[in-house]
Amino acid sequence: MVQNDGARQSQGNQAPGTTLPGMFSRYKSSVEKGLYNAVPGADNFEAYRLLRYHLGWVDRQGGPLDTSVTQGKALRPTLCLFACNALADDYSQSLPAAAAVELIHNFSLVHDDIQDQDVERRHQPTVWHLWGISKALWSGNAMQCTGDLSMLNVAGQSISPATVLRVSEILTESYLEMIQGQCLDLNFESRTDIKADEYLYMIACKTGALIRCALQIGALLATEDETAVKAFAEFGNHLGQVFQIRDDYLGIWGDQATLGKATDSDIRRRKKSYPVVFALERASGTAMEDLLRIYGQEELEEDDVQRVMAVLDEVGSQEYSQRLTEAAAARALEALKPVSLPRWAQTEAEELVDFLARREY
Amino acid sequence: MVQNDGARQSQGNQAPGTTLPGMFSRYKSSVEKGLYNAVPGADNFEAYRLLRYHLGWVDRQGGPLDTSVTQGKALRPTLCLFACNALADDYSQSLPAAAAVELIHNFSLVHDDIQDQDVERRHQPTVWHLWGISKALWSGNAMQCTGDLSMLNVAGQSISPATVLRVSEILTESYLEMIQGQCLDLNFESRTDIKADEYLYMIACKTGALIRCALQIGALLATEDETAVKAFAEFGNHLGQVFQIRDDYLGIWGDQATLGKATDSDIRRRKKSYPVVFALERASGTAMEDLLRIYGQEELEEDDVQRVMAVLDEVGSQEYSQRLTEAAAARALEALKPVSLPRWAQTEAEELVDFLARREY
Repeated sequence: MVQNDGARQSQGNQAPGTTLPGMFSRYKSSVEKGLYNAVPGADNFEAYRLLRYHLGWVDRQGGPLDTSVTQGKALRPTLCLFACNALADDYSQSLPAAAAVELIHNFSLVHDDIQDQDVERRHQPTVWHLWGISKALWSGNAMQCTGDLSMLNVAGQSISPATVLRVSEILTESYLEMIQGQCLDLNFESRTDIKADEYLYMIACKTGALIRCALQIGALLATEDETAVKAFAEFGNHLGQVFQIRDDYLGIWGDQATLGKATDSDIRRRKKSYPVVFALERASGTAMEDLLRIYGQEELEEDDVQRVMAVLDEVGSQEYSQRLTEAAAARALEALKPVSLPRWAQTEAEELVDFLARREY
Repeated sequence: MVQNDGARQSQGNQAPGTTLPGMFSRYKSSVEKGLYNAVPGADNFEAYRLLRYHLGWVDRQGGPLDTSVTQGKALRPTLCLFACNALADDYSQSLPAAAAVELIHNFSLVHDDIQDQDVERRHQPTVWHLWGISKALWSGNAMQCTGDLSMLNVAGQSISPATVLRVSEILTESYLEMIQGQCLDLNFESRTDIKADEYLYMIACKTGALIRCALQIGALLATEDETAVKAFAEFGNHLGQVFQIRDDYLGIWGDQATLGKATDSDIRRRKKSYPVVFALERASGTAMEDLLRIYGQEELEEDDVQRVMAVLDEVGSQEYSQRLTEAAAARALEALKPVSLPRWAQTEAEELVDFLARREY
């Protein structure tokens, strides 16, 4: 378990994992400023209207809404600004980069929703569900272009063209890795012989690459010290695993309402997330037979869901998943050790890791 | 009509529009070299296999095939290399840029086929038709990343990071414009009141932007002379219109077999291409009533197709479309006038424009 007195203190009397660490609120307005600057205001390009809707800024008619409900945590841009801020006092030069990473993440969500035929995200109908596959396809693409342009525009007084090229390349390579993860994940749908290692590689691509990229680019825009840049990249690799395995955990044992998903749990959706892959590797006898039978079905009934839950319980999936999360959390903090960070940054890194490993939403 | 003795001579005894101008064969191996270098050989990433299939390099099992049938004309990379070659002797530095533009074009085709539910392209089943929408979605995205990375890698001994940034920005802005064109085109599907000017703006985005970008980037990698760069960009804007209006013409009055489309003509597909938009603007009385009735139907019978063809004939769509093409062709050549080009390049530009305006495929 990852614990830290500073983190505990700053969370006050709240139970761990129920409150967002302070860095999220501290960078919130900077994240928003970066995004507003990156997304053109022009209303004559429909894709931008869909983009603003997906980002949770406006409702489907373009009217105002309660953004506290419709906006995500903005994890990736927050990480980008944090890395830059931890290594340099002024982090203003990283605002366009933070926006770029968030836009690329959201582009992948728009296309992901088409793929999974998900009808709701963050309590709102998804873009393809409202406007059809074609418009969702192109507005996702427009979002990705907007992200790329934001990154290419990071050039400023203190950022050389060569550095802009390097961060642009890192961003593009990272989302190519993310796409590779998406493709692997697709192939897993028809398989029941996925090894845990394969699964961890898939999530390192699908989720980890962009989280690592956010931290690495934030660091690169602050310093030329390659040790520091590498440490933040490594921190990101482990953080990606922490985030995704906890996400998988919450998809089965979390409070669905808190997650903002109207649909059922990941079991009902036959998602082969980590706890299920673990069970498929460990189960034997009748338990294994039941798993294979149930995951071979097109649709799952309540009885099937209950049986899968029982098998996960039998093989200890819940405990093992959380143990894996906490081991990755420890490795994440270990990765930062070669860098001499200011006290506040060290404390916040610990607070963040602790939150991601134990969050309830 | 655009005519030129040099072009006529080099086409020998062939009817104009039936043979590709010489520049296509001259740059063919360079285009291929650029593309092979840009597309990673790694076979463990499925999206690359689909990408190679779409590019017409391999069959669906990854085996060899007759690439003379499955590969396109490679218009855009050829234009990129031509612009560079016309302004500088050595055009080798533009190979990665030419590949980038071709990959971005093909990414748009893969997503376009999903949107239009087209089952065949260049005599082969389309990617989504063989592997499903999700894989086509992500392999299109991977293709686009590969294009971006190729452009970011254009840096060389003679190309500064600042120039790489500039061409990368031009590429991204151009395909954002292309996406805007795709969105406009989608909206036209449900409309029968499209004005010719709106249509021309749509194709300037959807088709023109990337053709202009190919020429502009090729020029930029050859020279810092902004007059020359601007002239090639302007040349590309008009060339885009030449290409698309002739494409629209061939979609109705061309030999479908030569075009490699198994499906019927654009009329049967209810495509609102230029000749139809022209008719919807010009027709009146019964002719207009018939057009509106027919384009309001979900499916068209042979009788409907014949009636539309008759209306197009009545309003003179065929002649007017070709007149528009040839006017754009003349403006294209006019745009190059401020640049002093070597004789061979001037002749080839004329030959190219003449071919695009009168091609039969």
